[in-house]
Amino acid sequence: MAVAEALPAAAALARFVVGTRFDEIPATVRHEAKRSLLNFVGCALGVPQDPAVAAAVRVLMPFCGGGDAVVYGRRERMDVMGASFVNAVAGNLLDYDDTHLPTVIHPSAAVAPPVLAVAASRGLSGAEVLAAFALGAEVECRLGNSVMPGHYARGWHITATCGVMGAAAAVSRLLGLDEERTASAIGIAASQSAGLVENLSTAAKNVGVGNAARNGVFAALMAEQGYAAAPTCIEGPLGWARACGDEPVMSQIVGGLGSRYAFARNTYKPYPAGIVMHAVIDACLELRTAHELEPARIARVTVSGDALLLARGDRVVRDQRDARVSIHHAAACALLWGRAGVPEFSEACVGSAEAVAFRDKVEARLDDTLPTGAARVQVQTTDGERHECVVEHARGSIEAPLSDADIEYKVRALADMGGSGCDVDGLVRHAWSLDRAGDVVPFLSCTLPS
Amino acid sequence: MAVAEALPAAAALARFVVGTRFDEIPATVRHEAKRSLLNFVGCALGVPQDPAVAAAVRVLMPFCGGGDAVVYGRRERMDVMGASFVNAVAGNLLDYDDTHLPTVIHPSAAVAPPVLAVAASRGLSGAEVLAAFALGAEVECRLGNSVMPGHYARGWHITATCGVMGAAAAVSRLLGLDEERTASAIGIAASQSAGLVENLSTAAKNVGVGNAARNGVFAALMAEQGYAAAPTCIEGPLGWARACGDEPVMSQIVGGLGSRYAFARNTYKPYPAGIVMHAVIDACLELRTAHELEPARIARVTVSGDALLLARGDRVVRDQRDARVSIHHAAACALLWGRAGVPEFSEACVGSAEAVAFRDKVEARLDDTLPTGAARVQVQTTDGERHECVVEHARGSIEAPLSDADIEYKVRALADMGGSGCDVDGLVRHAWSLDRAGDVVPFLSCTLPS
Repeated sequence: MAVAEALPAAAALARFVVGTRFDEIPATVRHEAKRSLLNFVGCALGVPQDPAVAAAVRVLMPFCGGGDAVVYGRRERMDVMGASFVNAVAGNLLDYDDTHLPTVIHPSAAVAPPVLAVAASRGLSGAEVLAAFALGAEVECRLGNSVMPGHYARGWHITATCGVMGAAAAVSRLLGLDEERTASAIGIAASQSAGLVENLSTAAKNVGVGNAARNGVFAALMAEQGYAAAPTCIEGPLGWARACGDEPVMSQIVGGLGSRYAFARNTYKPYPAGIVMHAVIDACLELRTAHELEPARIARVTVSGDALLLARGDRVVRDQRDARVSIHHAAACALLWGRAGVPEFSEACVGSAEAVAFRDKVEARLDDTLPTGAARVQVQTTDGERHECVVEHARGSIEAPLSDADIEYKVRALADMGGSGCDVDGLVRHAWSLDRAGDVVPFLSCTLPS
Repeated sequence: MAVAEALPAAAALARFVVGTRFDEIPATVRHEAKRSLLNFVGCALGVPQDPAVAAAVRVLMPFCGGGDAVVYGRRERMDVMGASFVNAVAGNLLDYDDTHLPTVIHPSAAVAPPVLAVAASRGLSGAEVLAAFALGAEVECRLGNSVMPGHYARGWHITATCGVMGAAAAVSRLLGLDEERTASAIGIAASQSAGLVENLSTAAKNVGVGNAARNGVFAALMAEQGYAAAPTCIEGPLGWARACGDEPVMSQIVGGLGSRYAFARNTYKPYPAGIVMHAVIDACLELRTAHELEPARIARVTVSGDALLLARGDRVVRDQRDARVSIHHAAACALLWGRAGVPEFSEACVGSAEAVAFRDKVEARLDDTLPTGAARVQVQTTDGERHECVVEHARGSIEAPLSDADIEYKVRALADMGGSGCDVDGLVRHAWSLDRAGDVVPFLSCTLPS
């Protein structure tokens, strides 16, 4: 379908969300939706007993009405809003979920949990889930594209701020709202758009992300009951984009709606670390293998990258959260242990004496000639050897995407780590056949503990 | 108590909220808290059956856990978060609740409902309610002072954006959280701070205000369970104030904490209209009485004011929401009917043929020599008389505050209009003696329908 570009943003997005048939969504995008959902649920299955997840369940359970929405990897059942919050927190907790690189939005975090929960509660098909998810994620990424890079740079945690509108759009689709109410849902979500970069290294981040999912449901339900929003809620003089400080680029929102999919550029991380650390890890792994670098032989490591890499990654590591965005720990994982999986970013590994000592050997250096996303790693050994490796496109980037098999492998490792004993074989099987599933309960049931 | 001004904003506010004893709060502020609570609950009692309130109950009831928090003027019982949302929506719906003029925050909307609900559910005393409310409102007004006027001018609905932090602080106090957790609650609330001016003329506004109350409770509960936030969540480079575009004035947040109360400048509206319309109404009422102006004799009305009055009030009136911020309807009410109460801003009166015709006789004119808040009204009669009245300080302003008796009168009129048959005598009596009440259930019970 084509959408008139002269419409206000919310109306244009609503027309797209309401009017796009499943079979009008490109097959590649529908497949990307499956990959995202599987990857996201897998991330949540890695941490079902994490204190942050457990605390969210403890707080919200007394505020849940009936409802039997599943909490991935846990035995509790919650209502759709409560489960959406907890599952969004869990899936995003390791920062290991999918990333839309142009905006650094994690598209699934806010959208996948409510889509799956609402569809399960209403007996909707897998095709409807894939459509609602892909369209909601598209709304989210387009809104993000329209305000980047200023939005994030100014302190808005874009996964949360745009996520709530994507979730509202997706749930509106599942509820069968008409264009007007879908536009209202997006606008009501805009009045709930929140989340601060300043809080990213704390659990307050989780609240922002969880709320994006929870409040997206809420926005759609309020719109269903007739609550309206201003048609110009996004681009108006006192609307969302400008309140956040941006002149929105309208063509990023309404241009090519239905023919060009921003969400098609979604990516998946092979490592549970900040995405700009991935090239560092790849380069270190390659050096380790190519030159059989035993850790004891390594005297000094120099990691060069552009200003973004340095700004994000040249930091003191006090805990797990720091480690996931640390150049020093990224290099330490790869060169010490030859791996950079979830265990290597655990509190135990991060705080181990050998990691602390190794991080001290790593120096971060600015090299503005390197493109964003690239890293040069130079290793000097105790016996005077010098080795260098430059990685421009890290594994998991658009240029070097993870395969379906890579994602399966990652999800299995996560589920194993999470230890819930869920049916990961079934989960993978159901994920790839979601487009043919009459409902999503079998898929979701595979997330339950054995 | 004195608070070190060198602390980060959240820590300083937390120390103030945790460490201030009831008897350290000035008696005038404690009394202002009673006035605000009575006025706010009264506003909610005016509209218990409004479609916006009913829709909010319909949406949230299936998502309420147990809990028996009252919904003012209605029979349903909800959990504390659900009731906080609905009561905040109801009390703010007419824009008739209290106003902190320097920030245009309605301080009670986000703070009063959760304070009353949490206190009732935990059997806390009236003195604890007054303290938590006054301290939470103080946090809210100080944060607002630190970012005005840019924050609102840029599109942030400050009642919601600052309200959520005031509510979080107040509920933290009631939960007995320590300083660290109270600071975290404020920071978690900062990551939930949302609400757009662009949406003010729609029901999406209600969602922003209701969420401020609901999410304030949520922030405190999450902090109680150990969720933390960045110490610099307010003033940090990527924190709340700057994300919203402002360099916060720190002295407005931490200066004179405990000795100077911003909340002491709270005001109450005699008319359910935008506060800058009040001088217009006063001037028209005075002209009507002084010159026995029958509406039929009025040929033309000219209302002059500063840019703020014109920007807010010179508008096309399509509905009730427009009418409440219309210079033309403000003048019409006062000159047509000699009253500007809730009925005169009802859909029926706003849409009546005589109101439509009268509004056409009213012209708004810019006069930059008039101070903000003032209005000059000139009336020309059909027989050539000209009368003029200038009001600088409208009734209900800091300079001409409503008396306790005025507030009682207003609350009685609202409760009467709401038609729930609640015990308004009891409500008034319990409000004035809240400081001596062992718990707040008797006060809240007076809001229940007969």
